[in-house]
Amino acid sequence: MNLKKIIKNNNLEPYFTKGYFGIEKEGLRTDASGYLSQTNHPSAFGSRSHHPYVQTDFSEAQLELVTPPQDTLKLQYQWLKALHDVVNKTIPEDEFLWPFSMANILPEEADIPIIKVKEQSEIDYRKKLAEKYGKKKQMISGVHYNFSFTAEFIDKINEKKQLDSDKNEWINNMYLKMSRNFFRYQWILTYLFGASPVSHPTLLDSSEIGPARSLRNSAYGYHNTFSENVSYESIENYIKDIEDLVKNETLYEEREYYGSSRLRGAGKNVRQLVNNGTRYIELRSFDLNPFDPMGFSYEQSLLVHAYLLTMVWMDEDNRDEDVKKGIEMNAETSLENPYDYSKYKEEGIAILEKIKETSQELKLGNEYLTIIDEAIHLFHNPEETLSSKIMDMIGHDQSYVELGNELGKKHKQFSMQKPFLLSGFESMEMSTQLLMFDALQLGIKTEVLDANDQFLAFNYKGKKEYVRNGNMTSKDSYISHWIMANKTVTKKLLRDKNYSVPGGSEFSSFEEAMEYYAIASKQSIVIKPKSTNYGIGITIFKQKPSKEDYKEALHFAFKEDDSILVEEYIEGAEYRFFVLNEKVEAVLFREPANVVGDGKHTIKELIDIKNQHPYRGEKHRAPLARITMGELEALMLKEQGHTFETVIDKDEKVYLRENSNISTGGDPIDVTDEMHASYKTIAEEIARELEVKVTGLDLIIPDMQEPSSKENKGYTVIEANFNPAMNMHAYVEKGKGRRLSMKVLEMLYPNVKLS
Amino acid sequence: MNLKKIIKNNNLEPYFTKGYFGIEKEGLRTDASGYLSQTNHPSAFGSRSHHPYVQTDFSEAQLELVTPPQDTLKLQYQWLKALHDVVNKTIPEDEFLWPFSMANILPEEADIPIIKVKEQSEIDYRKKLAEKYGKKKQMISGVHYNFSFTAEFIDKINEKKQLDSDKNEWINNMYLKMSRNFFRYQWILTYLFGASPVSHPTLLDSSEIGPARSLRNSAYGYHNTFSENVSYESIENYIKDIEDLVKNETLYEEREYYGSSRLRGAGKNVRQLVNNGTRYIELRSFDLNPFDPMGFSYEQSLLVHAYLLTMVWMDEDNRDEDVKKGIEMNAETSLENPYDYSKYKEEGIAILEKIKETSQELKLGNEYLTIIDEAIHLFHNPEETLSSKIMDMIGHDQSYVELGNELGKKHKQFSMQKPFLLSGFESMEMSTQLLMFDALQLGIKTEVLDANDQFLAFNYKGKKEYVRNGNMTSKDSYISHWIMANKTVTKKLLRDKNYSVPGGSEFSSFEEAMEYYAIASKQSIVIKPKSTNYGIGITIFKQKPSKEDYKEALHFAFKEDDSILVEEYIEGAEYRFFVLNEKVEAVLFREPANVVGDGKHTIKELIDIKNQHPYRGEKHRAPLARITMGELEALMLKEQGHTFETVIDKDEKVYLRENSNISTGGDPIDVTDEMHASYKTIAEEIARELEVKVTGLDLIIPDMQEPSSKENKGYTVIEANFNPAMNMHAYVEKGKGRRLSMKVLEMLYPNVKLS
Repeated sequence: MNLKKIIKNNNLEPYFTKGYFGIEKEGLRTDASGYLSQTNHPSAFGSRSHHPYVQTDFSEAQLELVTPPQDTLKLQYQWLKALHDVVNKTIPEDEFLWPFSMANILPEEADIPIIKVKEQSEIDYRKKLAEKYGKKKQMISGVHYNFSFTAEFIDKINEKKQLDSDKNEWINNMYLKMSRNFFRYQWILTYLFGASPVSHPTLLDSSEIGPARSLRNSAYGYHNTFSENVSYESIENYIKDIEDLVKNETLYEEREYYGSSRLRGAGKNVRQLVNNGTRYIELRSFDLNPFDPMGFSYEQSLLVHAYLLTMVWMDEDNRDEDVKKGIEMNAETSLENPYDYSKYKEEGIAILEKIKETSQELKLGNEYLTIIDEAIHLFHNPEETLSSKIMDMIGHDQSYVELGNELGKKHKQFSMQKPFLLSGFESMEMSTQLLMFDALQLGIKTEVLDANDQFLAFNYKGKKEYVRNGNMTSKDSYISHWIMANKTVTKKLLRDKNYSVPGGSEFSSFEEAMEYYAIASKQSIVIKPKSTNYGIGITIFKQKPSKEDYKEALHFAFKEDDSILVEEYIEGAEYRFFVLNEKVEAVLFREPANVVGDGKHTIKELIDIKNQHPYRGEKHRAPLARITMGELEALMLKEQGHTFETVIDKDEKVYLRENSNISTGGDPIDVTDEMHASYKTIAEEIARELEVKVTGLDLIIPDMQEPSSKENKGYTVIEANFNPAMNMHAYVEKGKGRRLSMKVLEMLYPNVKLS
Repeated sequence: MNLKKIIKNNNLEPYFTKGYFGIEKEGLRTDASGYLSQTNHPSAFGSRSHHPYVQTDFSEAQLELVTPPQDTLKLQYQWLKALHDVVNKTIPEDEFLWPFSMANILPEEADIPIIKVKEQSEIDYRKKLAEKYGKKKQMISGVHYNFSFTAEFIDKINEKKQLDSDKNEWINNMYLKMSRNFFRYQWILTYLFGASPVSHPTLLDSSEIGPARSLRNSAYGYHNTFSENVSYESIENYIKDIEDLVKNETLYEEREYYGSSRLRGAGKNVRQLVNNGTRYIELRSFDLNPFDPMGFSYEQSLLVHAYLLTMVWMDEDNRDEDVKKGIEMNAETSLENPYDYSKYKEEGIAILEKIKETSQELKLGNEYLTIIDEAIHLFHNPEETLSSKIMDMIGHDQSYVELGNELGKKHKQFSMQKPFLLSGFESMEMSTQLLMFDALQLGIKTEVLDANDQFLAFNYKGKKEYVRNGNMTSKDSYISHWIMANKTVTKKLLRDKNYSVPGGSEFSSFEEAMEYYAIASKQSIVIKPKSTNYGIGITIFKQKPSKEDYKEALHFAFKEDDSILVEEYIEGAEYRFFVLNEKVEAVLFREPANVVGDGKHTIKELIDIKNQHPYRGEKHRAPLARITMGELEALMLKEQGHTFETVIDKDEKVYLRENSNISTGGDPIDVTDEMHASYKTIAEEIARELEVKVTGLDLIIPDMQEPSSKENKGYTVIEANFNPAMNMHAYVEKGKGRRLSMKVLEMLYPNVKLS
């Protein structure tokens, strides 16, 4: 029985239409004027030999962005976005990625730098390629599309035992059929996606060729033509042909075989396909799409998927001679004038109709159908293809280089606008985005285990680590968390070790708390619920409380929790010490929400201006919160004799809140370098005492420049927080921002080569 | 200025009335017939030399229970209860603690065993005491009451700098005044608390002495009379006098000085009191109260506290000659006939009135006033004193030994009734009570950090460990917890490592979940909310679901959570593997709530009978839950053609629930020894894979005796639970109970000497 019948008979279509998808995208680093960058690969990318996501291809300036395989195209595109973000934010400020497959302004052959890596074999291989093809041709970039069926699909087919061949055999045959048919109709994708109509003369003088659909896919492009020498009719022939190309020294190594479709297995040599089967198929014929910031749009990915499924699903099964015919048609198509109808328009439309029909049969969904219809539309309207659109722009008002600069810079801007977000993963909390950014940059393998839960898995040279909410890791014990979660317990442990903590008691009955008035009435006190964190239910008595007020404050606190604390009130400024791996990495002072006058604007206007800053936005998604204009703020202004409409003097500072939380619009001010070392030492000792690797300690310190001493401790520990916020340290209102997410990675991977 | 004035002027009464309280209680292990036990100290108490709570005093059979100092008398009494529980449950089944100060039936001198410890010096010391006083006298037991003011009180007084003397000096003077006045009026406490009117003739023939208030406090009792030789007028004299007693060999060691009040410092020798000050005072004159299971009631503790405060608060300050007078009056009082009025009745009442007045002035509260009034009442009614009550009982219908046996056995029963609770700490969850029991038994220092939070701190030979909820410890990492809390992540990690987990997907949108129907419709499935644990929102389709039912089940699940799981349904019995420290310590099968017929009772009656079992009670406070008779149970019966009134056949089993949760009345059945080893190995591997030290793994295993193999794994992992329940393994319906709390301690302290 054939595969299609088995799928249909067993209703396995839902498994057939799943897959794993990955993109490899090459791109040239380009300087502000459109020249090939002469700078080295940024050292911030860490160890080059291990980097799974950002590689250099032929040249030092030729980046290759590699997404890990994802089980949906949406995720694959998210990853492609994220990697572009990482690259855009890591390469020098004045560089950008060239948006076209055909190169930017190239120097002389001799000045094109081959990659500078440690592995001499890699350098030698590229030297040979340079001799054989010329360095310049190596600078043509493109997109590779990797696809595989899921193991679940393979298992489901296999367990039916309705195929004559064994597992690896039928898998190889399936991918071979996909390849043969792909080759036969590949020209359609070149018609649709071709986006290299012209070239800069430093690479190729295209003026004589005339505008094309895809120079890269043409005889002028960078492709070896050995596909004709490789049979796709059986795995044995496929392997033997490639091995022969190496044996007769047509190719230096098997990996030099650049057929538009390659079968990939578990190991490096093709021979193991026999025993291990094809793992995935690699399609290499796609031009960079200069209009998409990622060089290949989500919609393009969808179309290729539908196309590939159809190539297997269709009854038609082409042979090697058809493969050759397809290769010829593709070469023809690539040199057609973009504005012309395709010579094979009718076949193109017919195949797209077949793809549509297949997509309907397989229930791929409307997203697919829409993009297929658009592809059909393009066969009727060649002036709307990518290559035509590029020609429109070049023809009208700008040169190839101008257009490349414009598009490339615009795409980079897409990343730079929000420095604290990781494109593709904006739904996660900012701290998790920052952490993932750092991991991707360093080449630590990253997996999003659960985006809703801010749950990441890392793997660096086989060492796995898991992180939740940015800094919850295996380094902290379960119980340290609970110690910190319980304010009374934390205080008790610290007091036992002679750290200065506020005096006070915990009560779980109103009566007992009332009895404590005997003691409470003699001092300034704070009454608060035991376990809330946001200032709710708290009353501060800076003066000794009256019995009536005390009673009321108890009621207020007991409304929020079964247990309350009555604590000594400590006067002084409160600082947040971020301690990581027994070291204070940042100290922050938080100033309550405020505006500073300019003598012209009203308070309302000043707030609006302050809120427009890109740092201020949604909770957990931006470093700072916007100042709200609610009742509390109005009341606070009233107490100062103001309203929102008051115009305040130049340099006059008006506070809108009593509390200093960042979440209510407060300003973070970094004082890491100003804080006296003695307090940092104390914070580090406390973290050790609590046996916690990541904590945010809140200390009240009346004078941060006056050292702590035995006689005058000079501080009081108010709280120890687990999972402390990192964002507010990274993007501060004043002082130096601290990249704490990188410190988290350094803790998890002390040996990772850091910049 | 004097202390009282400073307290009054600065309103420091609330600090003066705080304190730390501890009890040391001696008691003889007694066999079922009232004879001194000849068995060895139970090895379950672990290392004897380190045990902070359960010591042996003179004899191998003479236990000393020592509470750690507590900051309230309530807590002190709770501890005393808990230690009695531990002792009662640890000593041989047929032994109990003798309730009287005067001994049980003693063997010949030679047959009274001196303690069997490793330290030869301790044995030698007791041999000398035996020679000097006779072994029998050493068998008289009593209660020591330790009291200290708080450091906070000391600091508050000190910082006023209104005393002429330095800190250690005034502290010593304060405790010396307390001691002098205590000695002077000590007889009052002997009148009230005296409870050794007679003795068994094997210790002392008391028939000639006649009934007394307190033989123990009399010349016949065990007290050395060297108090007269020790001055309490200054610390220098106090120290010198005790040192002289040793120098002139009246005493072997300083610790042999058994004055009714001793000043205790940081070290062992009295000399250091000069430089370090008195830390606490030890009062040694109290008889065991045979009517209180703990040998000394909470009310007695209150009275002593009020008494001690008054001894400092009163302006009167006695001198050494008054101390001597007091000692004489005490000797006189102790030999008075219990039924007689006190010779010093008027003085007694006057002092008690002073204590009452002081208590009012210091606002000690009604509890104190009530007990003081009762004490005054006893001066008017000597026939109601403890010694009279004992004489009543002995006179009427039973002998001293009979009464001792009766009371001692009754007191033991107090502990034995609820084998799974720790008296004094019943408010905590059962698992925490069990753990604390084990720690106290082994002599691991224990602190209840937060009873509401089930938070304990342990310390064994300086190594601190914290435990929350019975098995949340420093051994587990923060992130392992979160991995287990996220079912999708757990499954993903296990699947990646090739463990058998149910297939399925997570969805956070209804639409996506509906699209999955294409796959879901092809199998038996379970639909459940991602994060609830109690079976709420779950639908099981043992048959392939219809689209309509599937849709409804999605709605049902989404009501409970933003994310839901659609999983393959796996047929077979579910087992809970409790894995601790990489070892399967227990395997449990849970059977849904059920009753088995006897041919006579209705289902309702059978449920009532089953519910009466002491194992069944309140959630987290008893090992098993009671079966309820609600709608679900009624429905379940109806489906089987029954009602609650049905009388079912003998041995017929009727289920009242579909789910097997213990919390809904299910039966735990231990199958640890029946489960095939291959599954235990798998469970241990999984725990290692998840890097978790304590986990409850739920596996579905159709045949637990059929080994797991590569071809036929034979199991599916359904869930990995952090903080798994321990109670249900300890008290099972069938099979062997497993004491998992002890295993938790073994994990934390691998070197603790275990029984």
